Amino acid sequence: MLKGHQSWLFNQKPTIHATATVVGPFEGRGPLANDFDRIHDHSMVDKDSWEKAERKMLEEAGDLAIQKAGYSKDQIHFFIGGDLMNQITSTSFAARTLGIPFLGIFGACSSSMESLAIASLLVDTGAADQVLAGTCSHNSSAEKQFRYPTEYGSQKPPTAQYTVTGAGTVVVDRAKDGPRITSATIGRVIDMGISDPFNMGAAMAPAAVDTIQAHFRDLQRAPDYYDLIVTGDLAKVGFEIANELLQKHNVPIDRTQFKDCGMMIYNYEEQMVQSGGSGCACSAVVTYGHLLNQMREGKWKRMLVVATGALLSPLSYQQGETIPCIAHAVSIEMGESS
Amino acid sequence: MLKGHQSWLFNQKPTIHATATVVGPFEGRGPLANDFDRIHDHSMVDKDSWEKAERKMLEEAGDLAIQKAGYSKDQIHFFIGGDLMNQITSTSFAARTLGIPFLGIFGACSSSMESLAIASLLVDTGAADQVLAGTCSHNSSAEKQFRYPTEYGSQKPPTAQYTVTGAGTVVVDRAKDGPRITSATIGRVIDMGISDPFNMGAAMAPAAVDTIQAHFRDLQRAPDYYDLIVTGDLAKVGFEIANELLQKHNVPIDRTQFKDCGMMIYNYEEQMVQSGGSGCACSAVVTYGHLLNQMREGKWKRMLVVATGALLSPLSYQQGETIPCIAHAVSIEMGESS
Repeated sequence: MLKGHQSWLFNQKPTIHATATVVGPFEGRGPLANDFDRIHDHSMVDKDSWEKAERKMLEEAGDLAIQKAGYSKDQIHFFIGGDLMNQITSTSFAARTLGIPFLGIFGACSSSMESLAIASLLVDTGAADQVLAGTCSHNSSAEKQFRYPTEYGSQKPPTAQYTVTGAGTVVVDRAKDGPRITSATIGRVIDMGISDPFNMGAAMAPAAVDTIQAHFRDLQRAPDYYDLIVTGDLAKVGFEIANELLQKHNVPIDRTQFKDCGMMIYNYEEQMVQSGGSGCACSAVVTYGHLLNQMREGKWKRMLVVATGALLSPLSYQQGETIPCIAHAVSIEMGESS
Repeated sequence: MLKGHQSWLFNQKPTIHATATVVGPFEGRGPLANDFDRIHDHSMVDKDSWEKAERKMLEEAGDLAIQKAGYSKDQIHFFIGGDLMNQITSTSFAARTLGIPFLGIFGACSSSMESLAIASLLVDTGAADQVLAGTCSHNSSAEKQFRYPTEYGSQKPPTAQYTVTGAGTVVVDRAKDGPRITSATIGRVIDMGISDPFNMGAAMAPAAVDTIQAHFRDLQRAPDYYDLIVTGDLAKVGFEIANELLQKHNVPIDRTQFKDCGMMIYNYEEQMVQSGGSGCACSAVVTYGHLLNQMREGKWKRMLVVATGALLSPLSYQQGETIPCIAHAVSIEMGESS
């Protein structure tokens, strides 16, 4: 199971039985609209606060993934998830609604792959038969909590990122058909001394590169093992830095096989998203929607998803701290069997 | 491994190789002073903010447990932990200092047993050889974040609890000697409609009882299997409610075998702690210090630690939400071998 210092090689290769993606109207106007299961007309959904709307989307995505996998809620052994809200209330409250035994996690925007890695471990080792993993974020609840009151409509520098409104979930089990989860690499916290919360991509890029290098070292693989290596939400600025760092460290990843979810979800020409998308939901809805659809269509055979998270809080920033970051990687492969 | 619906029965019975407990001066004046590894003279430790002091104590407890187990940091495969601070910054920043691959979790005050359960799972299944788990809390950082500015010195109702200042950590591995972790039960989120954040014990009691019942159901055990069943931080008010609920549900737990960490850590006569102690560190320092010392001295042979957590945030309270709660249970036994 343990491979190298910080990776897991899954013997049984758990299956992604079903996924669900629910997004807001702005994401529904982006280029991946056709890949989402549900697009809400209003970012408030039918709630009276952004936080409740965020939670509602996670509840919907949880219900939908369970339903698509053909299970009832009481057949799911554990729900693993987390989000950006203080005390991960969106996920904890959704766990209350779902009623499934719950492991709350926090890895900021790396929560998507942290929860998928743990879910896969549980299924692989027989600690569970069916697990739901998921995460969510909301542009307005994140703006309000991390930046300025959303109503200010404050101006942003070009390095800033736009938090995705949405929720992505996955049911992991031992089903015969479907994409298989073959390994995971758990990241270290990396802090290169960047303190500008409007430049998260630059802060997170070294963590992504550290985890990618650890993955190849632990699994004794070269980058060409994968058709696609995709980072979570580095966006334009961070992605350029990641490319430079990979080159500097002699990691031969070709630009044609290297992408970023934060650069895929919006249309830069028409949507004002500065450097690109971010938020827990960014890598979740792009991976569980768009990328897995492409995988099922045969476009990718082997994919490494490297979700990145910035582990700051408004308070740590106010106290003069730099931004510690982390990245967790999960590899998903088609045509594998246990 | 999976036992019943929500429990894990560990085949290899991972070992608690070493623990470390670091507390503030107020905890050092309580009845368990002799059980702590380090008692700081000042709640600021040597830092300029409470948050940094909280993190420092976790870093110290992490270093100390690793050292006591005879390891160097690079021999520890994963660090699992979380805390009460927004975005679990105390733990994430400690993870930056420790440099160990990190899985951030959040279960409020249930984080102690959530992290221990996952650490045990990793060691049991071969997903890791050595894992560090831990959590921390600080009275002043929690007051400031969850209640009123600490300097107000606001009055408290008798149902309120006093957040423990401290950090508790544990190194789990496959060492031959030491207390063994034999099973764990992961809780569901339970919300009985209580919305008063100054009465967390009452809110958490039903979650503790739900997990205790699930544990006995899943493991097909009766309460007399254990010498000691100990809840995390129900304190006086919540503990009475838990006793009533257990009686109502016909769970025969004797008062002599049932205790609460929040009722042990302070001296009610001399320390003004209202209903008792709380906070992530409460169950961590009492279990990893006092109770494991008693276990090693032969007082307890089999112990079930049921850490309880209230999953609210100040914002969820302001938006009129009730308090969702959770409890995770881990059983620790002496004289077991794998």
